[in-house]
Formats: sequence, C-alpha cells, structure tokens
Amino acid sequence: MTREELLSITIEKTSDEKYQEIKNTLGELEKPVDGLGRFEEIICKIGAIKQTSKPDISNKTLVVMCADNGILEEGVSDVGGYVTGVTAKNMSEGKSLVNLLAENSGINILPIDIGINGDIEGGSLLVNKIAKGTKNFLKEPAMSEEEALSAISFGINIVKKLKDEGTGIILTGDMGVGNSTTAVALICAILEGDPNVLTGRSVGLSDSLYQNKLNVIFEGLHKYGYDLDNILVYGGCDFSEREEKQKERVFEMVTNLGGLDIAGLIGIYIGGAMYHVPVVVDGIISAAAALAAENMISGCKDYMIGSHFGKEPATEIVFNELEIEPVINAEMTAGEGVGAVMLMPLIDMVMNMYYKLKPSEELDFDGV
Amino acid sequence: MTREELLSITIEKTSDEKYQEIKNTLGELEKPVDGLGRFEEIICKIGAIKQTSKPDISNKTLVVMCADNGILEEGVSDVGGYVTGVTAKNMSEGKSLVNLLAENSGINILPIDIGINGDIEGGSLLVNKIAKGTKNFLKEPAMSEEEALSAISFGINIVKKLKDEGTGIILTGDMGVGNSTTAVALICAILEGDPNVLTGRSVGLSDSLYQNKLNVIFEGLHKYGYDLDNILVYGGCDFSEREEKQKERVFEMVTNLGGLDIAGLIGIYIGGAMYHVPVVVDGIISAAAALAAENMISGCKDYMIGSHFGKEPATEIVFNELEIEPVINAEMTAGEGVGAVMLMPLIDMVMNMYYKLKPSEELDFDGV
Repeated sequence: MTREELLSITIEKTSDEKYQEIKNTLGELEKPVDGLGRFEEIICKIGAIKQTSKPDISNKTLVVMCADNGILEEGVSDVGGYVTGVTAKNMSEGKSLVNLLAENSGINILPIDIGINGDIEGGSLLVNKIAKGTKNFLKEPAMSEEEALSAISFGINIVKKLKDEGTGIILTGDMGVGNSTTAVALICAILEGDPNVLTGRSVGLSDSLYQNKLNVIFEGLHKYGYDLDNILVYGGCDFSEREEKQKERVFEMVTNLGGLDIAGLIGIYIGGAMYHVPVVVDGIISAAAALAAENMISGCKDYMIGSHFGKEPATEIVFNELEIEPVINAEMTAGEGVGAVMLMPLIDMVMNMYYKLKPSEELDFDGV
Repeated sequence: MTREELLSITIEKTSDEKYQEIKNTLGELEKPVDGLGRFEEIICKIGAIKQTSKPDISNKTLVVMCADNGILEEGVSDVGGYVTGVTAKNMSEGKSLVNLLAENSGINILPIDIGINGDIEGGSLLVNKIAKGTKNFLKEPAMSEEEALSAISFGINIVKKLKDEGTGIILTGDMGVGNSTTAVALICAILEGDPNVLTGRSVGLSDSLYQNKLNVIFEGLHKYGYDLDNILVYGGCDFSEREEKQKERVFEMVTNLGGLDIAGLIGIYIGGAMYHVPVVVDGIISAAAALAAENMISGCKDYMIGSHFGKEPATEIVFNELEIEPVINAEMTAGEGVGAVMLMPLIDMVMNMYYKLKPSEELDFDGV
C-alpha cells in the first residue's frame, strides 16, 4: 500500500437506521427508558457499525500489538526494554496479566510481534516483525515511510482475516516499554496540545524520570516542527486542501514519532471502519492510535467503542475529540488491553438483556 | 430489637493487616504496581472485611428490597405504583431486567417483599411484608418506630442467614416506585444538603413533575424540622453526646421519611458490618441506606464496596461521604441493583488474576 492509497481510503457512514431501530426496541422493553444509560448507546452503536439490529459479538478477539521503542535509550522509563519481549512471550503462553483477567471470558487473545527487539517464539504469538523496534526519534524518524505503511496495512489485513474467521468485535491492546512517551508525543503533535498538561506518569515514574520524559517529548516535538509556537499555517488554501494536508501531516507525525505498535493499531482502527467491525479503544497507546486513525481517515471514529478511563491525562482530551465516553473509571495503567477486556462482560450482560427482556406491554399484570 | 439495642451496636474495624498483605502480594505480581488501579483496592478491601488474604466471593447474592411509598400520592412519579408489584413478581420469576443482566453471572437474586402494596406470590420472592407501603410523609411519619426497627432487624438477620448459607458478598438493589423521592429527602436531611442541588429526575421526570418532586422534598424536610435554616444546635453538649444525638436523629429521619426498602437495606449494611460480609452499594436508594447506616452505626462504611455512578446528583456527595469510589460510570437509572450486578464480573476477573498471576521474580526470562 502506498501513502496515497492509504490516505485515499474512504469510510462508509454507520447505519443511523439500525441505531434508531435498536434504540426504539430498547425503549419499549420493561425497564426505565435509557435505564442502562451509556451501555444502551454502546449496543446501538455496535448495531449501527454492523448494519444490523441483531448484532452478534459473541466471538471476540483482543489484538495486542507488541513493539519496542528506540526512544527508550533516552531514559524515559525505569522498566527495562526486555520486558516487552518477556511479556509478549508470557502472553503467548497464556500467563500474562490480560490472559488471567480474560481467562473465563471467552475472549481470544492474539499477541502480535510487530516490532519486538529480540526473537520471541512459541505459543500463540503471531510474528510480523517490521523492525527490531523503532529508532530513537530524537536522532532520526522512528520509522521509515515503508515501515509505517507496512505496519498500518498489516493491521488492516488482520481485521479482514479476523472478520472472515468469525470475530464480531475487536479489542485493542499494546505492549511496549516506552510507548506512553511515543503516544503522548503523537497526541500533542496532532492536537497541538501542551506536553506539560498531557504527559502522565505511566506506570508510576519518579519525579526525575517524569521530568526527563517531559523534556524528551518537548524536544521531539521541536525537532519535527510540531511545537506550539510553530504551528503550520495553511494560509490561502481551501478547506479540502487543508484537510488533505492535515492527513499527510498526521501520517508524517506517526512515522517521525512512532511506534510500530501504534502504527499497527492505526491499521486495526482503519480496518474496523473498512470492514464494519467495532473496535474497542483501551488506554493511552490505543487512544493515540485511534486519534491518528481518525485524523488520517475521517469517519473511523464512528467504529470505535470506548472502554475505560485510565490515569493518563491525555486520554480525556482524546476521548472528547473522538466523542467516546468510557464507562469504566478505575485509574488503571496496565496496558495489554485490560480495559477493553473488562468492558466485554458488561456488554455481554446488556446484550443478553436486549435479546431476552420482554416489552412492557407483554407483561403479566394479573394478580397484582 | 429496641431502638436502644439498635443504636448501641458497635462495629469491629476491618483488618488493616490483611489489606496490606493483599496489597503487597498484588504489588509483587508481574504487572505494573497498582496497574489495575481501584480494582486492586477493592480486592484489598474485600480481604480486610473478610479478615483473610484469600477471600472467597464466588457465591454472590443480590438482595432486592421491594416496597411501595405513600408519598406517591403527592404525584412525584409518572410511573404507577402497581409497577412495584409487577416488577417484583417478574423478578421472582426470573424475567425482570436484573435477572436477564445477571443470567450467566452465577449471582443469586433474592427479591424481598418488605412492603409492597398488594399481595404478590410465587417464584423466588421472599415475603416479609412489614406494611402495605409507607404512609405519605407529608401527612404523617412514613413508618412507625416499630416498623422501622422490624425492617432494619430483618435486614440484619438476612445477612446472617445468607452468610450461613455460604454467600461471600452481598449486593444491594431496590424496587419501589417513588423511592428516589424518599431517598433524596433522607440524604438532604442527613447531610443538611440543598434539595435544589441534590434532587434528580430519576427515570426521566418532566419539568413539572420534577418541580413537584422538589416541592414535596422541601415540604417534607420542613415538616420534620430538617430544613436548612432550622439545623439542630447541639450547644453545650460534648462530642460523644452529640454523636449519640445524631444517631437518634438519623433513626428518626428514617422513620419520618421512609421507605421500607431503605430501612431493609440499612439492615443489610449493618448486618454486613456485624458479620464481616462485604456489601455492594448500587444507586441512589442503596446509597441513601448506606449513608443512614453509617450515620446510625459508625464503621459500617468500611464494609461497603462502591459499584457505579448513576445519573442522580445526590450520589456523588454520598459516595464522597462514605469514601467509596465507583468504577462504573454510565448514567444508569434502572434500580434493581443493576450497577452492583455489573461490578461482579469485573471483580471476578481481578480476583482470578490475583490468585493465578505469578510474581515477577518467577518469570521465565530465557530466550528473550
């Protein structure tokens, strides 16, 4: 896939008709109207995405993109880079955090080596290594254009494959030491956001590591011309031209700041929108990819389902931008897609109710 | 049980030692420290309540207190009073909203007629009718002292019985048309809160019904001397005497404003604290009962687990007061204990992880 092919993808609108059909049905059931609040909206949205009032999401797959980040050599984390590989290996053997959370949930877990700096094998790991981690973005662009395109188109193809195999909903997850630095840098670049406000402490950085992470993000944004006082001026061009430039620009931000996990997830979001598969957003990495996807291919956001609010300050602004409202709020920082996974039993409960609860009028009022 | 016996109940502190023991274990597992955020705190709290680092909550019971409210004759709801009975009947036959949400969750659902205005039979309904609904609190106290004491001691006894039968965690739910009026009135009375701020629209009141509900709450608070400009002055008494008076006063608020569902749930919270069973708080009715329980018997709050934020504005202030932070935020208004029920699969996931995830040091680092 070329850059032009990627950026010329167009997304069909989701079905307002099916959304409304489900909403009407839910409104007639024997419960308060909107009684399950945002969960009802999620069911409607899933139907709109899948273009049916009887959506089937019983078959669920969590895609965990695993990759290393060159920026780690700047000291942005106190976790060693080897942990990316160790965790991917554990995940592929069913022993990692997300496996045990999801053990009785029926969710298929698919860890993918899209750029681990080391050779992991065995278990359920799908190996599609595009590079042994990204480059240090303070020295050179994190990825080449070819690498970014490979990662994105791989993500798109995975969605197609999973859909063909019966997956009804895709969950996003990530594993990559240092990836909250790349994610926040990318979010700041796209939204012209202030790193002082949007940078978090990830899994619990000390003050000095946090300050260093912040400096690295500022420096990275400056290197590629994305700092706040250097905002690109689209003077004189018309709106469609501006939009076209913005797409190009966001694609370049992804290649410059990385990572391969984010690029792979961008492909998942675009693929979800192309193939009408709902994609569940997880935490900060997943959110950065979602934001980039929507800003490269407009309309992707209608295919996204929010799951949880974690501790990273940047997620709130991204979720506002994407108009998604997570229903879980627990200050989780774990990654691996745990928030997306935890949404699933809740959706299953509401879906069961949607299919089985009777309308008010059919109720038995005798003997009362 | 006499009023004196009730108000002299004392609650044992939960185990700080077990809390810390679980926290330490969680901190050593192969995941980011505090990576599951508030869910980790919930597991610690459950262990502290049950005085063990290996808590077993596999057996779960939802207690749904069902009762009618005399205040309904003042026009505070557009739902007919008969719906309380219809829903209780459906619930007892496994056909109501909460049954279908919980269908595959393994949660035992126990609907209780503690004051339905009508005779319902059959199914799993436990009948312990204390009165055929409460009185209209604008005309006379909602309950007599005897009725309130019966409802509370019944709730306490149910906890004992459920614990003896193997229940490891109790969930609270309610069904009673008009009960958001009694709940908000009670919360305003206890917290000296402003009804203009704390009154919500329940399942979707029109402007005129909302205004009427608000007037009824103001009038009720005024009738019993609980309005903001008539706050009881404890001049001259020492602190322990003041606390004693507050207990008496809250008990009187419960009898004056009702309802029987709230009184039954107060008993559940007190019983949970007496018998070391964690009790999950649901929405506004459950929250009002939780607040009253803590204000009558200090220490009950340490045995409470938050579940969800609904749409009612009063819940936030109550949750702050009780120091519980719900992890689900979805603007639900459904009652029946649906929020408490939805917390369960999440806790089960985290509990499974707690028991099965390996400590970091035992991980296999070979081949990476």
